[in-house]
Amino acid sequence: MHSLVSRILQSEPRAVARALTMVENDAPDKRDLLRDLYSYSGRAHIVGFTGSPGAGKSTLVDSLLTYLRKQDLRVGVLAVDPSSPFTGGALLGDRVRMTKHSLDTGVFIRSVGSRGSMGGIGKSTREMIYVLEASGCDVILLETVGVGQAELDIMTVADSVALVVTPGAGDDIQAAKAGIMEIADVFVVNKCDLPGADTLVRELEFVLREKPILRENWLPPIVRTKASVHEGTGEVWAALQRHRHHLQESGYWHQRRLQRHRQETLKLIEAVFQGFVEDEASRNPRWQRALDWARQPDPYASADEILKDMPWIREPLDNPLQP
Amino acid sequence: MHSLVSRILQSEPRAVARALTMVENDAPDKRDLLRDLYSYSGRAHIVGFTGSPGAGKSTLVDSLLTYLRKQDLRVGVLAVDPSSPFTGGALLGDRVRMTKHSLDTGVFIRSVGSRGSMGGIGKSTREMIYVLEASGCDVILLETVGVGQAELDIMTVADSVALVVTPGAGDDIQAAKAGIMEIADVFVVNKCDLPGADTLVRELEFVLREKPILRENWLPPIVRTKASVHEGTGEVWAALQRHRHHLQESGYWHQRRLQRHRQETLKLIEAVFQGFVEDEASRNPRWQRALDWARQPDPYASADEILKDMPWIREPLDNPLQP
Repeated sequence: MHSLVSRILQSEPRAVARALTMVENDAPDKRDLLRDLYSYSGRAHIVGFTGSPGAGKSTLVDSLLTYLRKQDLRVGVLAVDPSSPFTGGALLGDRVRMTKHSLDTGVFIRSVGSRGSMGGIGKSTREMIYVLEASGCDVILLETVGVGQAELDIMTVADSVALVVTPGAGDDIQAAKAGIMEIADVFVVNKCDLPGADTLVRELEFVLREKPILRENWLPPIVRTKASVHEGTGEVWAALQRHRHHLQESGYWHQRRLQRHRQETLKLIEAVFQGFVEDEASRNPRWQRALDWARQPDPYASADEILKDMPWIREPLDNPLQP
Repeated sequence: MHSLVSRILQSEPRAVARALTMVENDAPDKRDLLRDLYSYSGRAHIVGFTGSPGAGKSTLVDSLLTYLRKQDLRVGVLAVDPSSPFTGGALLGDRVRMTKHSLDTGVFIRSVGSRGSMGGIGKSTREMIYVLEASGCDVILLETVGVGQAELDIMTVADSVALVVTPGAGDDIQAAKAGIMEIADVFVVNKCDLPGADTLVRELEFVLREKPILRENWLPPIVRTKASVHEGTGEVWAALQRHRHHLQESGYWHQRRLQRHRQETLKLIEAVFQGFVEDEASRNPRWQRALDWARQPDPYASADEILKDMPWIREPLDNPLQP
């Protein structure tokens, strides 16, 4: 294990690939590996890309990847696909990208299914970020299929979120995106040569003016791109860099890391509790009686009955019930 | 409250609408209301509809609704839209449907956002089902936007799941659906007059033959429909009825209700624990030290530190630690 860790720290591609696979498969020795990697985390700029299917997220991420590599930055790409809950396999598009960059040792690309993560960004994604950070990635690009929970989750994982929109995607879609707009740090109007691009930019400007979205005192800029021909990619990166500097100068950079660690820790604790509750429910006769639907069809009443066995849940821990 | 309950039991439309709104808004007196309704639950046939956007789920549900009303069955429709996490409002299409059926007192239609449910089918949906069951609905149709977690969740809520597919939706989409196929009790090939319908049916038959999906000893039938002109709607209903009888005769009907009650109860307990953990984390100095990222960047180590304060989580409850 020690040699794997040192090989990851030297960003040896095969060691990094092996570690990512260990995380993906929830391998038994994953825990030991991660323990040695955590102290190297917290430095990479984690950028999330979200937006409707067809907006050109993959193309933009690909263009940005090429751009960043030219600047000799080490880049990790994680494509999160919440629409495939059963599989952890790579999408066709990612396989193509992987092949294209397969000889470049400064790039790591992985697809992550949302297995076990309730359709959002799961533990695997978070843990893969730790591996990529330890391997010396300067930038980690997270790409989500733009649906549901993953879009909101990305905010808790990424330092900067880019929302990719495109002209002519339909008014109702844009309206439905209103909520998602609140999480964007940078707006990217892709396919900006299509008719309607100017209107879309004006609409976004209008929304931003009417209801300024000042999360962390940052006014999200709007960048036009034509990612398929690498147009505007540099501007997207410049906007993301400005956001990073803003976060660092304002202290939000550090604060987000604190927050993320807290959330991850509490999630782990909740998972342990969940396992305990499942175990207890399948062996404790009192609980089984309380869970019997035929006897008691009200889940609130059943929950109250069971919670009586765990009075500490409602009492502060430094006020123990026993004298 | 008592009068509201009795008015719901008499299926008075305004009382049912008010109860659904109470559940939707998580009103403080919701709990009292539900307590009185639980004993009337467990009788309706809950049918979930899932499938890719554009497959014609809404049209099929609408056609089935008309069909069931002609048979004088009371019907509830819940449209679950996990893509709008921020709003609980109705989609345009549902407003249209609501208007169409607004004078029919045997129909209740509601849209449910996925607010607070991690992109899946949330507590609101489950609780609305209780209200609809108490109001005397014979059938409850659940329609999901076919993405991510809601598709899997529907299995835990519905008695029967219909997967709506359509010809020419693209091979990759069909492949990605492979996982979703496992949860289908009835396959509906909609828009069956489009070219490719026969191929799609043959493909489904092939998949079912090669890898028979015998969840609960049931071989899912394939039904062709053209929902826009009500073609095949009766056949869909017949297939769903056969599935219902299969569940009832095999005992799975009762078993699913037991299972659902157990899951709901455990979820409530987990929510209480989550609230406790959040409270404790914001006031307990020991926990705050353990959660400090700058001191300890490893969430597993932080979780272990905190779990030391709750040894009972790992110990069976009828083996208390204190002598």
